Amino acid sequence: MEEESVERIFESKKVPAWEKQLTVRAFVVSFILGILFTFIVMKLNLTTGIIPSLNVSAGLLGFFFVKTWTKFLGKSGLLKQPFTRQENTVIQTCVVATSGIAFSGGFGSYLFGMSEVIAKQSHEANSAQNTKNPSLGWMIGFLFVVSFLGLFSVVPLRKIMIIDFKLIYPSGTATAHLINSFHTPQGAKLAKKQVKTLGKFFSFSFLWGFFQWFFTGGDNCGFASFPSLGLKAFENKFFFDFSATYVGVGMICPYLINVSLLVGAILSWGVMWPLINEKKGDWYPADLSQSSLHGLQGYRVFIGISMILGDGLYNFIKVLGYTLFGLYRQFNESKIEGDVSITGNSPPDLPSLSYDDDKRARLFLKDQIPMWISIVGYLTIAIVSAATLPHIFHQLKWYYIAAIYVFAPALAFCNAYGCGLTDWSLASTYGKLAIFIIGAWAGGPNGGVLAGLAACGVMMNIVSTASDLMQDFKTGYLTLASPRSMFVSQVIGTAMGCIISPCVFWLFYKAFGDLGVPGSEYPAPYALIYRNIAILGVEGVSALPDKCLTLCYIFFAFAIFVNGMRDAMGKNLARFIPIPMAMAIPFYIGGYFAIDMCVGSLILFIWTKINKEKAAAFGPAVASGLICGDGIWTLPSSILALAGVNPPICMKFLSRSTNIRVDKFLAP
Amino acid sequence: MEEESVERIFESKKVPAWEKQLTVRAFVVSFILGILFTFIVMKLNLTTGIIPSLNVSAGLLGFFFVKTWTKFLGKSGLLKQPFTRQENTVIQTCVVATSGIAFSGGFGSYLFGMSEVIAKQSHEANSAQNTKNPSLGWMIGFLFVVSFLGLFSVVPLRKIMIIDFKLIYPSGTATAHLINSFHTPQGAKLAKKQVKTLGKFFSFSFLWGFFQWFFTGGDNCGFASFPSLGLKAFENKFFFDFSATYVGVGMICPYLINVSLLVGAILSWGVMWPLINEKKGDWYPADLSQSSLHGLQGYRVFIGISMILGDGLYNFIKVLGYTLFGLYRQFNESKIEGDVSITGNSPPDLPSLSYDDDKRARLFLKDQIPMWISIVGYLTIAIVSAATLPHIFHQLKWYYIAAIYVFAPALAFCNAYGCGLTDWSLASTYGKLAIFIIGAWAGGPNGGVLAGLAACGVMMNIVSTASDLMQDFKTGYLTLASPRSMFVSQVIGTAMGCIISPCVFWLFYKAFGDLGVPGSEYPAPYALIYRNIAILGVEGVSALPDKCLTLCYIFFAFAIFVNGMRDAMGKNLARFIPIPMAMAIPFYIGGYFAIDMCVGSLILFIWTKINKEKAAAFGPAVASGLICGDGIWTLPSSILALAGVNPPICMKFLSRSTNIRVDKFLAP
Repeated sequence: MEEESVERIFESKKVPAWEKQLTVRAFVVSFILGILFTFIVMKLNLTTGIIPSLNVSAGLLGFFFVKTWTKFLGKSGLLKQPFTRQENTVIQTCVVATSGIAFSGGFGSYLFGMSEVIAKQSHEANSAQNTKNPSLGWMIGFLFVVSFLGLFSVVPLRKIMIIDFKLIYPSGTATAHLINSFHTPQGAKLAKKQVKTLGKFFSFSFLWGFFQWFFTGGDNCGFASFPSLGLKAFENKFFFDFSATYVGVGMICPYLINVSLLVGAILSWGVMWPLINEKKGDWYPADLSQSSLHGLQGYRVFIGISMILGDGLYNFIKVLGYTLFGLYRQFNESKIEGDVSITGNSPPDLPSLSYDDDKRARLFLKDQIPMWISIVGYLTIAIVSAATLPHIFHQLKWYYIAAIYVFAPALAFCNAYGCGLTDWSLASTYGKLAIFIIGAWAGGPNGGVLAGLAACGVMMNIVSTASDLMQDFKTGYLTLASPRSMFVSQVIGTAMGCIISPCVFWLFYKAFGDLGVPGSEYPAPYALIYRNIAILGVEGVSALPDKCLTLCYIFFAFAIFVNGMRDAMGKNLARFIPIPMAMAIPFYIGGYFAIDMCVGSLILFIWTKINKEKAAAFGPAVASGLICGDGIWTLPSSILALAGVNPPICMKFLSRSTNIRVDKFLAP
Repeated sequence: MEEESVERIFESKKVPAWEKQLTVRAFVVSFILGILFTFIVMKLNLTTGIIPSLNVSAGLLGFFFVKTWTKFLGKSGLLKQPFTRQENTVIQTCVVATSGIAFSGGFGSYLFGMSEVIAKQSHEANSAQNTKNPSLGWMIGFLFVVSFLGLFSVVPLRKIMIIDFKLIYPSGTATAHLINSFHTPQGAKLAKKQVKTLGKFFSFSFLWGFFQWFFTGGDNCGFASFPSLGLKAFENKFFFDFSATYVGVGMICPYLINVSLLVGAILSWGVMWPLINEKKGDWYPADLSQSSLHGLQGYRVFIGISMILGDGLYNFIKVLGYTLFGLYRQFNESKIEGDVSITGNSPPDLPSLSYDDDKRARLFLKDQIPMWISIVGYLTIAIVSAATLPHIFHQLKWYYIAAIYVFAPALAFCNAYGCGLTDWSLASTYGKLAIFIIGAWAGGPNGGVLAGLAACGVMMNIVSTASDLMQDFKTGYLTLASPRSMFVSQVIGTAMGCIISPCVFWLFYKAFGDLGVPGSEYPAPYALIYRNIAILGVEGVSALPDKCLTLCYIFFAFAIFVNGMRDAMGKNLARFIPIPMAMAIPFYIGGYFAIDMCVGSLILFIWTKINKEKAAAFGPAVASGLICGDGIWTLPSSILALAGVNPPICMKFLSRSTNIRVDKFLAP
């Protein structure tokens, strides 16, 4: 039994007191990595909205930084405190909290969906009442008043979730295993090799981004417009765009996600849109602009939304069902010691007081966080936030906020519990729920669209932080990190995120003028989708083009049906059925990133065929290197853009006939 | 001693009679490979004129083809004769003879230099008198009457060269070792792996060529115009042009050659031409066309020529010196058995009648080729050729030919001997000698330029075949292949080459309209160089632009000086001194292929650092795969061009300002 042996290996190592786990160096490293990962998440937010789990990279890089630091200090004789796995967990927790804000802050979804750029694209409800342009001040303020609620809402429940319910939290467990393995001698050796690989691919990816930059001196220039599958396919957004990021993301995401994306892209851009395009002038007016939601773009956005909502509804009901069923069993059986596991995934007959469990539980329960702190904290922040938010969003009345805060802890618990079972955070689904309810409550003329989007932000921040924190508590439990140090690390990480994320977004916003414009480098697809969900909630479906509603119903039902099939089929067959949520993403933005990600899958697949062990050990490092290198290149790239330094060359792709015209035009 | 053990390993294997070594399958395979290598050599001829030794690829692929064939037949029970190393040598010899004609036929040098396309570029002596456009008929006729003379001229000398003088013939020896190793059991296993590697890179290189094709729909389109080092560098012909061929060639050529090319490119295109360009209007008229030899182009061509001539002269004298000195020692010491080696490279105290030597010598002397056959053959062909050639080239009188044929055997012997010592065939130097002498003899008004170029062809064919044949005899000697079968194989290979090479050239000529145009895909640099040597010989140096002659003298002297330095320094230091001959090539065509080749060098260098054995075993296979794949892609590519199928896309590189203009022009 592997579980049993872990703590015996570490027996000789003393666990430092919780204050000692929170070192200055840990937070310095967290700050640096937080900025790095915020850049990456922001880039992903604004390009496709698909964000892979970066926990492994954070753990790996955290280990590398502090290890180098302590080694250096150790040689100079200045090292006061050795590097422990608890400290490593603190760093990982802090980095994930920081970069988590980049996602839950909604810079690619609800928050940016409020802006005029996005509002203009939907042609509905784009009065001043329903728009609010990003500005550094209110974004930071908004994040500070909403991001800490989630922390306080689930802290009291940690013992129930981790010790009593013994929930799995797959990501948290995986991260803990990684951190534990790093701190054994042979683990450290492997980690060193992995870091070396990561570094190599980081450099490659960074330099590749740099090289690409030189050739993007104009619109539709450079490798991102490379019609590698031909011009016809390029027009329908099928091409390989040489993005190291998405090749890396494809290597991390499961094969099924990547294939689902590709299937969705083929279904939409390969079949449906060309077919609907032929109905131009019949189903919808032919003289509309490309981006009008009353035309083809409307079909793209709303069919995508209905699939996302269908998938969300199915999973909401399913996870809620699991939760209720799990709780029901829990209360029935809580008296019988040693049989508290609820899922089939954990070993059924594990004695509850094994050496590891005993030691972990003791340490986990040693440092308590008093109940009154969470209650006072929650109430204080709720009151401050209900008082402040209406000043930021006039459309969001204080009683909407109060209503959210009454239900929020229950929903936060649901999400944390569901995530513990399935690893699937439904934060964005709860957010969409808030859009509908608060939007409809406020009503269109009273700025319901904006109120809905703001409410989405409040809701998402609470439920997303709740599940993230519980994942971290699980990691802490398995690495003997104190819950107190985890909590402090989360608070500090969240605070850093509340400042770093808006700043990074601001950099993107100022550096790249066409943020959110369809077809540009940063189309921010979810911003439009979220705004349109709000419009749908407020104004109903009357504005949709002909037949669009019917198609939406079909795809809503299709998403539910496919999900039902996946659950009915059993694991073996479900592997071959695509996931509707993933299929819906390329509906709006096209298939190019799906092709990138499938290339990543293919590389990993071939690698696994050739050498399974090596692929398993170094695949994540390669992927992280590709993602991080390209992600961090956006920093110098946006600085160059801000400084007005433009790339010198345009690599242009012209059809032969156009090229002949251009050559004639350019001839002296 | 490795030498001693080889024949013991093969002791159990019977050497087939010479007629049995010449199988039908061997010639079928030779024919196929002959076409493949002719394409490759032709492409190299027409792009830069640098042709690496393809002996290893020929041996490897020959082995693979026949081995597959015999394995297949063996399984079906139809195999009558096993595959022997003698048969492998026959194939290798035949393929090298076939593809050798693609070089010595002068399609990239003297023969194409006669055409109007090239003549127009030099602005001198381009009357009808001095031009002759390529045509399938006369090219085949010409090759048939000149290509066989070399064979007959050195056949009688083979015993002296191989047995008595024990000359090294490095390439021939290397090929023999390769073939011997293939036919031992573990050698066959390694060969199989090598072939697999070769196949992989062949496919990659072919597909890469195919992919590139799609983006070349216009002039200066596609990867070959990729300004990977910036637009400014691109204007001065410094860029990586993504040519798999030259990366492969770079992996085969010694580091020193590649570095010399790069040094030459930097010296000329990086320093000299920009400086001379500033003298525009002063040293030469400013209103000349880009390709006029009275302008900057003249400096490029003539300075390059003078370096090539300087290097050629130095090496001619040096090799002649070695030859005479060697012969002198030979005749003095020929009575003392067992001490006949002349170079330091062969083991000094090898007993002459070792088991291997004894067996090899016996078999080598068994199948004689009677002296009268060579004499009658030589005289017959000489008479036929002297009678026919003036009908093809009116400017080439029969007595010029007769004069050449009197001296040719001596020169052929010199070349074969020098090549045996140094592996350096001076065929093109002898050819240039013929250009000068016959050109001057005929004189400009009587078509001296054309006569000179034709004479060059006659001379080059004789001396080049002579050294090739002797290399093959050495290979045959070391693999126990009969001299008779080698000779027959050479005759058949040469005959195939006389038909294949003109046809392949014709395909290029018809498919790519701009063959020989500077800056095009196939600039055929040596065609202009050879023509200008002829003009120089006939008309003197009066037409050169200002200061050009002075610079030519300087670089002529520089070439001799550097060569002298290289010899004076000793091997250790000579490794760091560039070779003038290699430096001169980029003077005219630019540095892009030098960069490709240095990339090849770099890959091999890093590979060798990581894994020396693997790099040594598989480096040549990778390089051959890259060269062959890209080379064979030219076949479908030229067929597509002939069929009028044009690539659909143009990948264009514009400066940012130009791109703004183009975007405005293209906007609807």
